Amino acid sequence: MGIYEGFSKDQLFLRKKEIEKRFSYYKKQNLKLDMSRGKPSSEQLDLSNVIFDYNGSFISEEGYDCRNYGLPDGISEMKKIFAEILGVSSENVIVGNSSSLNMMYDAFARAYLFGINACEPWSKLNKVRFLCPAPGYDRHFAICEQFNMDMITIPMNDNGPDMDMVEELVREDELIKGIWCVPVYSNPTGVIYSDDVVKRLAGMKTKAADFRIFWDNAYAVHHLYEENSILNILDECKKAGNQDRVYMFTSTAKITFAGSGVAAIASSIENVRQIKEKICIQTIGPNKINQLLHARFFKNYDDIKTHMEKHAKILRPKFEAVSEILNKNLSGLGIASWTTPRGGYFISLDVHEGCAKSVVSKAKEAGVTLTPAGATFPYGYDPKDRNIRIAPTYPPLDELKKAVEILCICVELSVLEKIL
Amino acid sequence: MGIYEGFSKDQLFLRKKEIEKRFSYYKKQNLKLDMSRGKPSSEQLDLSNVIFDYNGSFISEEGYDCRNYGLPDGISEMKKIFAEILGVSSENVIVGNSSSLNMMYDAFARAYLFGINACEPWSKLNKVRFLCPAPGYDRHFAICEQFNMDMITIPMNDNGPDMDMVEELVREDELIKGIWCVPVYSNPTGVIYSDDVVKRLAGMKTKAADFRIFWDNAYAVHHLYEENSILNILDECKKAGNQDRVYMFTSTAKITFAGSGVAAIASSIENVRQIKEKICIQTIGPNKINQLLHARFFKNYDDIKTHMEKHAKILRPKFEAVSEILNKNLSGLGIASWTTPRGGYFISLDVHEGCAKSVVSKAKEAGVTLTPAGATFPYGYDPKDRNIRIAPTYPPLDELKKAVEILCICVELSVLEKIL
Repeated sequence: MGIYEGFSKDQLFLRKKEIEKRFSYYKKQNLKLDMSRGKPSSEQLDLSNVIFDYNGSFISEEGYDCRNYGLPDGISEMKKIFAEILGVSSENVIVGNSSSLNMMYDAFARAYLFGINACEPWSKLNKVRFLCPAPGYDRHFAICEQFNMDMITIPMNDNGPDMDMVEELVREDELIKGIWCVPVYSNPTGVIYSDDVVKRLAGMKTKAADFRIFWDNAYAVHHLYEENSILNILDECKKAGNQDRVYMFTSTAKITFAGSGVAAIASSIENVRQIKEKICIQTIGPNKINQLLHARFFKNYDDIKTHMEKHAKILRPKFEAVSEILNKNLSGLGIASWTTPRGGYFISLDVHEGCAKSVVSKAKEAGVTLTPAGATFPYGYDPKDRNIRIAPTYPPLDELKKAVEILCICVELSVLEKIL
Repeated sequence: MGIYEGFSKDQLFLRKKEIEKRFSYYKKQNLKLDMSRGKPSSEQLDLSNVIFDYNGSFISEEGYDCRNYGLPDGISEMKKIFAEILGVSSENVIVGNSSSLNMMYDAFARAYLFGINACEPWSKLNKVRFLCPAPGYDRHFAICEQFNMDMITIPMNDNGPDMDMVEELVREDELIKGIWCVPVYSNPTGVIYSDDVVKRLAGMKTKAADFRIFWDNAYAVHHLYEENSILNILDECKKAGNQDRVYMFTSTAKITFAGSGVAAIASSIENVRQIKEKICIQTIGPNKINQLLHARFFKNYDDIKTHMEKHAKILRPKFEAVSEILNKNLSGLGIASWTTPRGGYFISLDVHEGCAKSVVSKAKEAGVTLTPAGATFPYGYDPKDRNIRIAPTYPPLDELKKAVEILCICVELSVLEKIL
């Protein structure tokens, strides 16, 4: 559909005037609304407060005193829970501290410092390249940037990354060492990887023997409506004879506490062995009390599912409010499109080409903080200056609604300024 | 004094017979005693259990919700406490997760991956050398080994490392990038660094611009009797114009929970800036709930002092029992000497040259696990095969006493076997 199809030039000028009026109305209110980060709200965090209201035993099911040193790969209770979340066995799991991002970063650090298997450490190579499906997660790209990797942008389709492009690239280039994936409710598009995409990722020929899929399953159980799961990539890798290809990550950051939950990495037995060999020198052990307290709170996977329904109940009205307001204000104008995810933490908004930066900056003027335009692309550069990530979870519902109303005004204003 | 001075050959054979009899008596008991690691005892851990019996607010003094993302350098409450422990300002402190060892390891990883200041990353150098005062902490040496550094053993004197040797080495060799120090109640000798040693470390000329002192102040407040403190190395470095030379580390591992406490790194403002620049990409933040719960438990430094007196009350009888039994059995024989530390977690036992391995292996036979002989030296190699680290904190007093009795028997037996 064309931009403002059916509007005459005069009508557009009139509309611009009206939008400008509404924009200055909001500007005068000195609002301070934040839709920038995928943070859980206080109400969600309250669901888990009792974790730390604990006066029970600190002895794990295997008899370890969680208050003392040891167990660099975590306690068995938490291994079991993560194994269920990720569809793997406990022996595939290493449970760490609170941050799965930290575990991803450390996986890179190990590849750079020591190499994977008998392969050259990445620090010895002239350059390492990494595939970055985009729009994607800005913190993934920031890690690549800190390690000075070449990031190659891969377009995201509705069922996952563009696999034709991925397959062609990894087949030829030994310096391409991996790919970022958020396979369920992808950040920020909400895409769920199709079986075909998972199979192709697991089975494709890679020139690099130490190619690794960084499988950030951050939203594995974060459904807003029905349960959605994906094909198990560790199984698929094994079937394809590429059993060591994938590092899976997940955490309870958005199940219990953002920053103080429990995180895990899961992989093949051989990868787990190699990782443990390194981390048992890096630390005497993770925070096992935090692990135990979590395991006592969630006896099992079913408890987590029940708990996640409580989150969904809080989050659904927020996601639906955003959809509704975007629909009401922007649908039928041909100037924006957006996702309606079935879970996760984000809504991805694509505005008219060349307008995203302007929208974000206008929103700022009106007191609404959004994730910087471009953040969802490698190097913070969205070549079409089009994508905006909306994070509806943190603000209270009334603030969120106001913020999205303002966002819609900024979208219209930016487009109208551009085309008139 | 000579070995078994005043004993005739016959008397020694007789003594050996008697010792052998006592050795087999213990062997038959199938004991399982562990003096291998510097772990706090259950009784000590119990002192802090109430930390997790918490139903208060999660808002920090600066108004941050500790249950949510953010603050990669930790909450101000804990910064203040660590600043007092280390004698620095809050702005010099980064508070992390539970493991100070992990923070040391990561400091190495950053030096290897990204370099310090404008210096070449250590991974780009052919070889990096590190000074290792010994006897020292085996886990320090294990990190060096994993990073494939050349470890240079520095003899430990009664007031710290042999500074003549240190100064001479660092003046000439650009590849010597740092030194390990446990300045208070050194692991395992219990040595407290003298003012002179601290000043020389701070002021010495180093060929490497990126030379760093890894100042592991693990036992800063772990007094058994009177308070002992040392000259502030950050101040001394500043005075000497080497303000960026030192990374200080400490943790509450042996104040609250071993593995689940809170750890910190402290350094110059410039170093803190450089570290934060990296860690804010590595993680969105440390476990701030654990930090807050600790800060609520210890309102301030005085509370920690009071708390440490409770630890001392539990530990003093253990250290004194070891001394007493060693004295009773081994003094005056000329076959062993040992330290009587005023704090910390270890007693260092030096046996007759060439006997340490044999002692540890005999103790194992009799059911007593000791730290492996050689562990206190780089590469696990004690050139004189003499040093044994005794860790008296973990076992209950009666078990400890029995274990040390057996240890004494093993010392005698090993020496007698060697000389007869």
